[in-house]
Amino acid sequence: MSSTPPELHDLIILGGGAAGTAAGVYAGRGRLDTLVLDAMGGGGQMNIIDTIENYPGLTAAMPGPELARQMREQMERFGASLTFDQAESVEADDDTVSVTGAYGRYRGRALIVATGARHRELCVPGEERLQGRGVSYCATCDGAFFAGQRVALIGGGDSAVKEALFLSRIVDHVTVIHRRDRLRAEQVMQERAFEADNIDFAWSSVVTEILGEEKVAGVRLRQVDTGEQRTLDVGGVFVFVGVLPNTEFLGGLIDLDEGGFIVTDIDMRTSHPRIFAAGDVRARSVRQIATAVGDGTTAVLNIQQMLDTETPPRDLARVCEVEP
Amino acid sequence: MSSTPPELHDLIILGGGAAGTAAGVYAGRGRLDTLVLDAMGGGGQMNIIDTIENYPGLTAAMPGPELARQMREQMERFGASLTFDQAESVEADDDTVSVTGAYGRYRGRALIVATGARHRELCVPGEERLQGRGVSYCATCDGAFFAGQRVALIGGGDSAVKEALFLSRIVDHVTVIHRRDRLRAEQVMQERAFEADNIDFAWSSVVTEILGEEKVAGVRLRQVDTGEQRTLDVGGVFVFVGVLPNTEFLGGLIDLDEGGFIVTDIDMRTSHPRIFAAGDVRARSVRQIATAVGDGTTAVLNIQQMLDTETPPRDLARVCEVEP
Repeated sequence: MSSTPPELHDLIILGGGAAGTAAGVYAGRGRLDTLVLDAMGGGGQMNIIDTIENYPGLTAAMPGPELARQMREQMERFGASLTFDQAESVEADDDTVSVTGAYGRYRGRALIVATGARHRELCVPGEERLQGRGVSYCATCDGAFFAGQRVALIGGGDSAVKEALFLSRIVDHVTVIHRRDRLRAEQVMQERAFEADNIDFAWSSVVTEILGEEKVAGVRLRQVDTGEQRTLDVGGVFVFVGVLPNTEFLGGLIDLDEGGFIVTDIDMRTSHPRIFAAGDVRARSVRQIATAVGDGTTAVLNIQQMLDTETPPRDLARVCEVEP
Repeated sequence: MSSTPPELHDLIILGGGAAGTAAGVYAGRGRLDTLVLDAMGGGGQMNIIDTIENYPGLTAAMPGPELARQMREQMERFGASLTFDQAESVEADDDTVSVTGAYGRYRGRALIVATGARHRELCVPGEERLQGRGVSYCATCDGAFFAGQRVALIGGGDSAVKEALFLSRIVDHVTVIHRRDRLRAEQVMQERAFEADNIDFAWSSVVTEILGEEKVAGVRLRQVDTGEQRTLDVGGVFVFVGVLPNTEFLGGLIDLDEGGFIVTDIDMRTSHPRIFAAGDVRARSVRQIATAVGDGTTAVLNIQQMLDTETPPRDLARVCEVEP
């Protein structure tokens, strides 16, 4: 054996968003020796949510980063803390799971994958070139740069409509471009968007190109039913057209669905008995903070039960130092 | 047809605890016409929790009834409210679900069963007779009556140890009686119980009788390995030996597990396509507020998707009034 294997922890949690942090709260309280890996300091998608009002128990609307901070501090109070790293690959055998990160290697008796999901892009000409120059995937982060301007927003789901409402309070005008003839968002959000006097809708339309040299100057639209094309003059383009799970680093280790999301049973167990998944990264998640938190809690309590019923494996790291 | 059927709602939620209230929050925001039935004004088992500190996002420990109140007010803010009633039976066909309560009949296009679970009893002589006279299933409710006294507490799980700690701050002494030789509770709670100087343990012991005439005077114990019997002089007996799901009113309508808990898929769907379950009442729940809230949210968002894709059935109530 060429090198000493890393210390064996009870539990490694990949991702410090809502699912990973909830898991950390319960793991800490359960006195599991736990590592929570997150490249960004935690919070996950909560960091880019302007206002949260539907997480059960909130007495008033709260900025996402504030709820993220509360959860992280609560987790740390109970003894679990964040390690700044990100998984690049994972291996597993019958007894342990090994994670290779950018800065180190980690080994645990169990793993929770709570790496979340990220925004899908349009993949049209101009999009990549103009990212950070008017093309954005986060209204909360970038909206203020477009005060007084007209912007386009692409999408029709919850995030799209929520972000349209946010932008409408900052910018001069929002045109929501949606490939279908109706929204998929929550009714209450739809109603608010229809009532806003500076939001209009380009129905059954797709963006074929984002225009501009140094910065966004407009978008090129095509009407999907008629094929008719037109140009919309806007200074910003906000893209909310879906999410991709952060599961590439898993290789073929556990079963994924056709979209790349991790398939679990109702206990959050994946196809490998020592690997669990929680939050937006799992298949069929409805992708809410409330459900991520539930998933993380379910995963830890089932892991605790699993670990309580078995004898910990010999820690190879320690054995190697005393045996030839 | 002998009588007009009740008004058809989008959704009926049975139970106003954590799962039902979270479902109500999302149903209200989704503009579903929703009835939440609860015989007691909501809160469920949160009402009998002294202190909650592990619900993700809490900045400090909070009494259960306080979190219950915050959730209920949040639900009402978004347009769903409680109806004081309790389901006595449920029927369902392809299009609708009908609930018969103590005070009325209700009809919905979908149903969430979030009726929770209740405490299991010891079923030993003296227990029923002395309920409310020293036998209790809720330390938070009744602990104050036993200040300065010695009490017995039966059980070894999370609730048992949590309640033992609560009681130890109020009463003179707590003896935890457990049929096994170790606890099943969270490690951190176990450690705290072992450190408390007025908690001791009667291991591998069962209660065979609760003694006393007008009020509890003691418990009769049997050592399960040796058969040895002894009497413990106590003024109170707190019983935490498991939970029973509140599913009797369902008859054989949907599939239950061997313990009577409702079997669901990962979307919280039961064996009937219009009936969902959430929280402690569902099979394999880890019975935390965090998971109840996740379940309720998952159920509503899947129901909303189901209802959005179908044409509402003709409301027979309205048809009956204009047709002969």
